[in-house]
Amino acid sequence: MSDLTLWTFDWVPEGPRGFVRDLRLRWACEEAGLAYSVGTVPFEGRETNHLAQQPFGQIPFLSDGEVNLFESGAGLLHLARKSEKLMPRDAVGEAETIQWIIAALNSMEMVTVPWWYLKLCGDEENGLTDWLGSRLSKLEKVLSERQWLAANRFTAADLLMADVLRVPDVRAFGDRPASEAYVTRLTDRPAFKKAHADQLAHFAAGDAARETTS
Amino acid sequence: MSDLTLWTFDWVPEGPRGFVRDLRLRWACEEAGLAYSVGTVPFEGRETNHLAQQPFGQIPFLSDGEVNLFESGAGLLHLARKSEKLMPRDAVGEAETIQWIIAALNSMEMVTVPWWYLKLCGDEENGLTDWLGSRLSKLEKVLSERQWLAANRFTAADLLMADVLRVPDVRAFGDRPASEAYVTRLTDRPAFKKAHADQLAHFAAGDAARETTS
Repeated sequence: MSDLTLWTFDWVPEGPRGFVRDLRLRWACEEAGLAYSVGTVPFEGRETNHLAQQPFGQIPFLSDGEVNLFESGAGLLHLARKSEKLMPRDAVGEAETIQWIIAALNSMEMVTVPWWYLKLCGDEENGLTDWLGSRLSKLEKVLSERQWLAANRFTAADLLMADVLRVPDVRAFGDRPASEAYVTRLTDRPAFKKAHADQLAHFAAGDAARETTS
Repeated sequence: MSDLTLWTFDWVPEGPRGFVRDLRLRWACEEAGLAYSVGTVPFEGRETNHLAQQPFGQIPFLSDGEVNLFESGAGLLHLARKSEKLMPRDAVGEAETIQWIIAALNSMEMVTVPWWYLKLCGDEENGLTDWLGSRLSKLEKVLSERQWLAANRFTAADLLMADVLRVPDVRAFGDRPASEAYVTRLTDRPAFKKAHADQLAHFAAGDAARETTS
């Protein structure tokens, strides 16, 4: 059994399957060839049942020997430092990778997620739409000029940015051919497909367990 | 002259002064005792005039020898790795610091900033209010149980989280005594006061330059 364990929920409803953020860490491990186990916390009572591991009641978190950490972005940085396949080792390439990881979390996802949340809540006059359009078009310009975000090669920054952009409502927002080609290219990678299939299988097993106990 | 340069705008209106994000990097440098210069890009035309340095048209960015990077969070991680005063060197302490830096960016600020933006736009029925309340109260629980977020000492994670929480509208949201004491304690630090005063002086000098040229 591997020391590296990724923690997620035992089950989630159909809607978020394939998009639960343990996928970011599964995908990174598959790209890097890192062996890992998957641990679970109950979806029921998630707001309070694992605050000691994750003070906002979210998943994923990971444990790796003596290190325990939450936040998918922090987990991704941790994994990136374990494998050059996820992040170059030279100072410039590493800095570019980290900068784009943070950009995905704090310039893109800071707009895409609240926008999506308001949309999900049925907010007709979504006050974040113009801001989302502006951010997505600036990123489209970047992606129209190069294939990868950092260091002229695949890095963990592409993995994360593609995961932010592949949310269906975001993907359908406007006509952004370079971004669409980027998402397609990234999600065509065998490591993504493996991670995605494994997440779906994991929650399907959760269905079976619930039927057995109900 | 120092190799390390923090880049910001030459001028901003009164409103954001004291809150422009170069402060995060100034503050970190002051805590760590790192010498730095301040470079500027014009506020006028900011949406397009420095996209080569910052593809979203934002500031700050930094240059440090051969490394150039944007995103205040990425700059903070870069500075944190230069000084143990900002981040412990042991694996567990470092992981805790990074996890809370990412939490500030992607669990807290992902809600506080869009909520504040909708409020600024005059959105009466701010659809993010319940989400903000939930996140802030979970953080209040954490801060009621300890003085620092990571490693039982001041780290760059506290610097960043305090900067997220000190935004006046966020600070005034609800009754959260531990969070309020935390913000007060952090912003009482000499390094914060120096960075804050320097930012105000920098933009005041921008006022003077505009008067001269107009």
